[in-house]
Amino acid sequence: MNLLLLEPADFVAERRVLLRDRRLTHLQDVHRAEPGATLRVGLLGGAIGQGRLLRLTTAEAELEVEFDQPPPAKLPLTLLLALPRPKMLKRVLQTVASMGVPRLVLLNSYRVEKSFWQTPFLEPAAIREQLILGLEQARDTVLPDVIIEKRFKPFVEDRLPQLAAGTLGLVGHPGDYPTCPRAVEGPVTLAIGPEGGWIPYEVDKLAEAGLQPVQLGERILRVETAVSALLARLF
Amino acid sequence: MNLLLLEPADFVAERRVLLRDRRLTHLQDVHRAEPGATLRVGLLGGAIGQGRLLRLTTAEAELEVEFDQPPPAKLPLTLLLALPRPKMLKRVLQTVASMGVPRLVLLNSYRVEKSFWQTPFLEPAAIREQLILGLEQARDTVLPDVIIEKRFKPFVEDRLPQLAAGTLGLVGHPGDYPTCPRAVEGPVTLAIGPEGGWIPYEVDKLAEAGLQPVQLGERILRVETAVSALLARLF
Repeated sequence: MNLLLLEPADFVAERRVLLRDRRLTHLQDVHRAEPGATLRVGLLGGAIGQGRLLRLTTAEAELEVEFDQPPPAKLPLTLLLALPRPKMLKRVLQTVASMGVPRLVLLNSYRVEKSFWQTPFLEPAAIREQLILGLEQARDTVLPDVIIEKRFKPFVEDRLPQLAAGTLGLVGHPGDYPTCPRAVEGPVTLAIGPEGGWIPYEVDKLAEAGLQPVQLGERILRVETAVSALLARLF
Repeated sequence: MNLLLLEPADFVAERRVLLRDRRLTHLQDVHRAEPGATLRVGLLGGAIGQGRLLRLTTAEAELEVEFDQPPPAKLPLTLLLALPRPKMLKRVLQTVASMGVPRLVLLNSYRVEKSFWQTPFLEPAAIREQLILGLEQARDTVLPDVIIEKRFKPFVEDRLPQLAAGTLGLVGHPGDYPTCPRAVEGPVTLAIGPEGGWIPYEVDKLAEAGLQPVQLGERILRVETAVSALLARLF
């Protein structure tokens, strides 16, 4: 937690907040903060700034806060991800939020196991929890939009062409394809497949929607590693 | 497991192997392989090739194997990593192996909690287990060297200058530093700090040994994400 993320309900006065949840525990156990300490704070969806710890008891922490900077810029990116297995989903949501992806589409694919769609980690509150952890890590305040598309074909045929219009459309896919470009200018739509990869039909459909396959070398990476590697290369 | 990694003890004849451990379970549960199936195989430390499944019972799997290709090239890199917390260490070891890092130094730093050095995940067999998972993921066969340096100062003063000689020496460090270079030619020595970062003294000592600070933007990334992002950008 490199930023204490605050919500309207935390405020007891214009510049005063009172914390009683896991953020209090974190201040006590990890920061080992003491009254007078200055901490980086952010307003969910808004600016970042500093908080001065006024009071810290086992029951609550009180801070005086001020906000003076915008949060870091987001990447000009829509990321499509074949739904990963639940444990990986949690980490990928954190990675996506911490790297500044503003819009994530979780998509079905032939090689996504049907059971993955049943996970409680796909519930809005669970998704939000992981995104918040990613924002706190990266000192961002703006939640990414997460869109869930359980049907590949209608999404890719009917909605993806508009989403990808005017962007550089790419599909991360191992094979005899051009190398993923570096340091691109302008917006990107990037699709990353499931463990085992997209099937040829899916690569074709994504290409029809404007996304061209690119590769990162002969090594097959875990989804989470592929996400951070592709984003670091593109931007 | 995108590659079945074989060791000399698995061989019952020149081109025949017999598997009884977690690789057997994986063939049954994940691959759901049937006799006649062809699987990608590799010889630990050696070539990669194909295996044909001859026989699969609940007790053992028998394959006929041949090796016809070299494993993927390693990165020209020595990676220094402040020892991460145990859970992160496991994943970082996989990431390091899967991305093709040939040499990893796990290093102490002021902000490494002393308890991290007590973890059983630092035992050679535990390190090897995670590295093997990373190799299987990326279809590599060659174990990275992992060097454990519990004392920062003697390592950085006495051994790092020789290790880094003739390489581009870099320290990943947030702050007002040049951006991490892209697509470099030639060998690199890269140091990545602990959660909370290197302290100024450590940055100075690393600079004396030939490693200059570079940054990846204002977002603070988890160690695992920083490793894959920095490597994808450098190579």
